[in-house]
Amino acid sequence: MKLIRVGPVGAERPAVIAANGQAYDLGAHDVRFDAEFWSSDGTSRVRRLLESGSLASVALDGERLGAPIEKPEKIICVGLNYRDHARETGATVPAEPILFMKAPNSMVGPHDEVLVPRGSVKTDWEVELGVVMGQRARYLSSPDAAIEVIAGYATSHDVSEREFQIERGGQWDKGKGCETFNPLGPWLVTPDEVPDPQALTLNLSVNGVVRQNGTTADMVFGVYYLVWYISQFMVLEPGDLINTGTPAGVSMGHDDVAYLKAGDVVELEVEGLGRQRSLLGQA
Amino acid sequence: MKLIRVGPVGAERPAVIAANGQAYDLGAHDVRFDAEFWSSDGTSRVRRLLESGSLASVALDGERLGAPIEKPEKIICVGLNYRDHARETGATVPAEPILFMKAPNSMVGPHDEVLVPRGSVKTDWEVELGVVMGQRARYLSSPDAAIEVIAGYATSHDVSEREFQIERGGQWDKGKGCETFNPLGPWLVTPDEVPDPQALTLNLSVNGVVRQNGTTADMVFGVYYLVWYISQFMVLEPGDLINTGTPAGVSMGHDDVAYLKAGDVVELEVEGLGRQRSLLGQA
Repeated sequence: MKLIRVGPVGAERPAVIAANGQAYDLGAHDVRFDAEFWSSDGTSRVRRLLESGSLASVALDGERLGAPIEKPEKIICVGLNYRDHARETGATVPAEPILFMKAPNSMVGPHDEVLVPRGSVKTDWEVELGVVMGQRARYLSSPDAAIEVIAGYATSHDVSEREFQIERGGQWDKGKGCETFNPLGPWLVTPDEVPDPQALTLNLSVNGVVRQNGTTADMVFGVYYLVWYISQFMVLEPGDLINTGTPAGVSMGHDDVAYLKAGDVVELEVEGLGRQRSLLGQA
Repeated sequence: MKLIRVGPVGAERPAVIAANGQAYDLGAHDVRFDAEFWSSDGTSRVRRLLESGSLASVALDGERLGAPIEKPEKIICVGLNYRDHARETGATVPAEPILFMKAPNSMVGPHDEVLVPRGSVKTDWEVELGVVMGQRARYLSSPDAAIEVIAGYATSHDVSEREFQIERGGQWDKGKGCETFNPLGPWLVTPDEVPDPQALTLNLSVNGVVRQNGTTADMVFGVYYLVWYISQFMVLEPGDLINTGTPAGVSMGHDDVAYLKAGDVVELEVEGLGRQRSLLGQA
């Protein structure tokens, strides 16, 4: 099952895409893809509505898609979680996960404009597997326990300003939470359609040139381990988004690959989770 | 004017403390101290209600106080923002503000239990001046413009686990957002009662022994500068909390000063913003 949010910014209506590819409107069913929805097993309710045949179909042509979830309480990111990416940036492979955070209001729709921040000369891309929490998670007992608390998966773009992140006084958060820096979607795909999150290809291109082409099999720490690990340091809430790191192929570390500028087009996709296309603008 | 939230966890009622020290209930007036309240000039509405004499007084004896604001979208912290604290931790005074983030669900009431995380041996204290945003702030034109977007000030405790923060793979967020790690309050004090945020004493004691005793006059970067600065890197939302750094006197860097353990009592105060008292427990 694929959950989506359709419509103008701030007025998105929830909808669901069935196995046959048809989208159905949930706007009349008092549904919001927020913490209350995930923690009350809203996906089962949507599944029953879908199976009842009572939902009205909706055409998506020409409609804007928002991020497939309401604004999360927090966006937690994992740094240097692919060996080849750690290598290209000159870093060592981490002994345990590196955690940092993005401002929740940096989340936008999958095809919304991404703004190069004022004063930026190093706006960079990162295609990532996004994991959305379905239940509260506090000191999970094991990575296996993480399976029960995941609501689904989405293509996530962890846009990053490298000078802000690294050269402006330390702590990566400064270059990660800028306005529009986290396009998410198009879909939130439920776990039954993602049987193995460690077997998904990811790719990203800039102006038609492929820059990233990896697989989640190359993660240093897998999805279930990450959810378990993070829950030892903070309480995860339903609806929280975890960005699980990016494979090699970013601009940083490659003098011959330009950073992003207004007018560029970035396209990215995680296998089975849908494709994003963002035009770059200037803040 | 001092805004408070009174009652059990999750069922706090808003109230206001008048200049004469008497508290008045706002629970019947459809008020929540959240983003919508700040951005619609809710404080002026509360002031009018107070002046109308129509509010019912409320006794605070024996009542729990929650944090004085609803859970913020984000908690942004400034690192090493007092020269003496930078020195004691062996760091250099930063050339520009260091920014990091705390999980919003780490915010608790001013007298709630603070939990030492599982596996922690370096749980530390930090008394701070907390600044709450009153308006959205995006690329503010100058530090002076910050004056118009601040809702008020509160005593804030930036509890920190130093091993998680520094020795577990980098990026401070890992040791900052643990459960119960941000007691806030007792009050949100409106700016008319804090004419100069750079002239406030701060102090903190552990089990009755004074450990921190500073003044906001010693900040490296002042409050208005910080709000302006942060708005260049992310969009601040009404209700966001900014922790502006701590003066010298934490446990880190002092081998003869023990870290916190269950049973300890921490008391802290920022001049004019009220006093917190937290009993330490074990997660």
